[in-house]
Amino acid sequence: MKYLITGFSGFVSYHFLRLLNEKEPGSEVMGLSRNTPEFNTTQFKEIKINFKSVDLLDREAISGIIKSYQPERILHLASVSSVAKSWLDPLNSFVNNTNIFLNLAEEIRIQKIPCRILSIGSSEEFGEVSVDKLPLTEEHPLHPVSPYAVARVSQEMLSNVYAEGFGLDIIMTRSFNHLGPGQKATFAISSFAKQLVEMSLDPLKARIIQVGNLSITRDFVDVRDVVKAYLLLFQKGRSGEIYNICSEKGVLLENILHLMSEQLGISVHTKVDTNRIRPNENKKIIGSFKKINEELGWSPVITIEDSLRDILAYWKKQLTQLP
Amino acid sequence: MKYLITGFSGFVSYHFLRLLNEKEPGSEVMGLSRNTPEFNTTQFKEIKINFKSVDLLDREAISGIIKSYQPERILHLASVSSVAKSWLDPLNSFVNNTNIFLNLAEEIRIQKIPCRILSIGSSEEFGEVSVDKLPLTEEHPLHPVSPYAVARVSQEMLSNVYAEGFGLDIIMTRSFNHLGPGQKATFAISSFAKQLVEMSLDPLKARIIQVGNLSITRDFVDVRDVVKAYLLLFQKGRSGEIYNICSEKGVLLENILHLMSEQLGISVHTKVDTNRIRPNENKKIIGSFKKINEELGWSPVITIEDSLRDILAYWKKQLTQLP
Repeated sequence: MKYLITGFSGFVSYHFLRLLNEKEPGSEVMGLSRNTPEFNTTQFKEIKINFKSVDLLDREAISGIIKSYQPERILHLASVSSVAKSWLDPLNSFVNNTNIFLNLAEEIRIQKIPCRILSIGSSEEFGEVSVDKLPLTEEHPLHPVSPYAVARVSQEMLSNVYAEGFGLDIIMTRSFNHLGPGQKATFAISSFAKQLVEMSLDPLKARIIQVGNLSITRDFVDVRDVVKAYLLLFQKGRSGEIYNICSEKGVLLENILHLMSEQLGISVHTKVDTNRIRPNENKKIIGSFKKINEELGWSPVITIEDSLRDILAYWKKQLTQLP
Repeated sequence: MKYLITGFSGFVSYHFLRLLNEKEPGSEVMGLSRNTPEFNTTQFKEIKINFKSVDLLDREAISGIIKSYQPERILHLASVSSVAKSWLDPLNSFVNNTNIFLNLAEEIRIQKIPCRILSIGSSEEFGEVSVDKLPLTEEHPLHPVSPYAVARVSQEMLSNVYAEGFGLDIIMTRSFNHLGPGQKATFAISSFAKQLVEMSLDPLKARIIQVGNLSITRDFVDVRDVVKAYLLLFQKGRSGEIYNICSEKGVLLENILHLMSEQLGISVHTKVDTNRIRPNENKKIIGSFKKINEELGWSPVITIEDSLRDILAYWKKQLTQLP
């Protein structure tokens, strides 16, 4: 199978490649990203990988790549994914997110490429929700509360139009909060893990950790479970449908910090960094994975404790590796 | 009061100016549009009007105008409003519609202008609806089915974010199908009216009228009632809220054709122009104006028969006027 992966340099892509290498040996992958991947692409011996550094806003470049590569499956992971930055520059966050999707969808439509597109969305799309409506099903109305979230909903609605109006084979996800080894330290859990491991490695380092709002409950799903869902959706998902990818478990961010401190055997104080507090934040978000479970048999298998252990091990390795 | 009107050259703007001239004499208006208005702006003696030909995609120009004019009320009518064209060029339809709104909202946000924005949306936003949910309230979930409709929903969601997240004073409408004198012949009813009047003026002209799908039921509201709602929303609407502007009456397009033929005393045959048929079209759309009625006392007063009579009179005048 010929895969095209946008947002190739991110950690979701990395874990998807690992899965492909195991489950679909012989696959071909064209990876697109502005940034060079930090992982070594030659480690995946069973699949053939090509990487192109390209800006997805460059329509002409995208056109040429699709024309010559003729992908059969497109995993569209790319996004300007920072909610925080979307508040600082709402116009560019919105426009870039929707434009990179449209550039891709338009080329598939115009060139009439028979391929399946997996359009990755976010639980941010739900926005304002009341606790009595949890866990959120795919039918729950959307009230996006950040420019980033609006862009994600727009992408989903556009996907619908391309599927129903133009007959493209598109499947959409609402992927809930990811965690797992390899995630950048700009994300809360990875940031906590990195700071904690630094402390555990240096007894003289102050036991104070920079945090945002710890009293929010989120539905965290391990990236290795997430990519299994993506592969299943490529193989057997229903075109034009939206699927939640989540754990159905709500975990308080504060508890995650406790769990990791416990695993490392250190105790820490927290210091709130107001830059990490977002406007309009929901207290609690939990999703329902009933739909993808009933249709494709998917459910997450990695526990939060195992995820956190692997994340800490990842940072320990990163921080103790010789340069 | 200092008004800024985008989409100034259109017929909604014309009728809004007429209303301002009557109800808020002394008002100042800055009109923006790519096209020069076809109406004479000097006919409104009680208000002061300035017109600037500008492309709303030109952020720098918008910035300068807002800085020097300091509007108190912005009627954002501008849109690339053709659903049909949005199917031919989805990317530009979407991008242009959302960008012109974002350029405006960003300037108001960044320059901290204390003004009220009326963001005009469309009943197209509802998209796919089931007949048992009629009349549609503002709470009805949105399932936009065209690129144009997705752009309108995106604009509404962005308006929400600017209102709730940035504290801008924005009110949103979902305006249902307009009719009234002065509407361009690219819209169905105006097109029928023009063709019928041409026949009534020329006994030798073939009694065949080009139509699209006549078996759809729509909620038509006279533009003169619409602009009254807009002025009320400026004066007393609640910030951050969405209001339907509609008639609560469903009229079959075919019946409109009959009513107009009757008024002119001619009988015609129809010829379906497949270019006028849209994909994914709803059979029936009717809105509820309960919210704006209960809050502001608005309800439409012009009957469909009176609207049609005035539209026919408009075309008769247009088509018999000496150049």
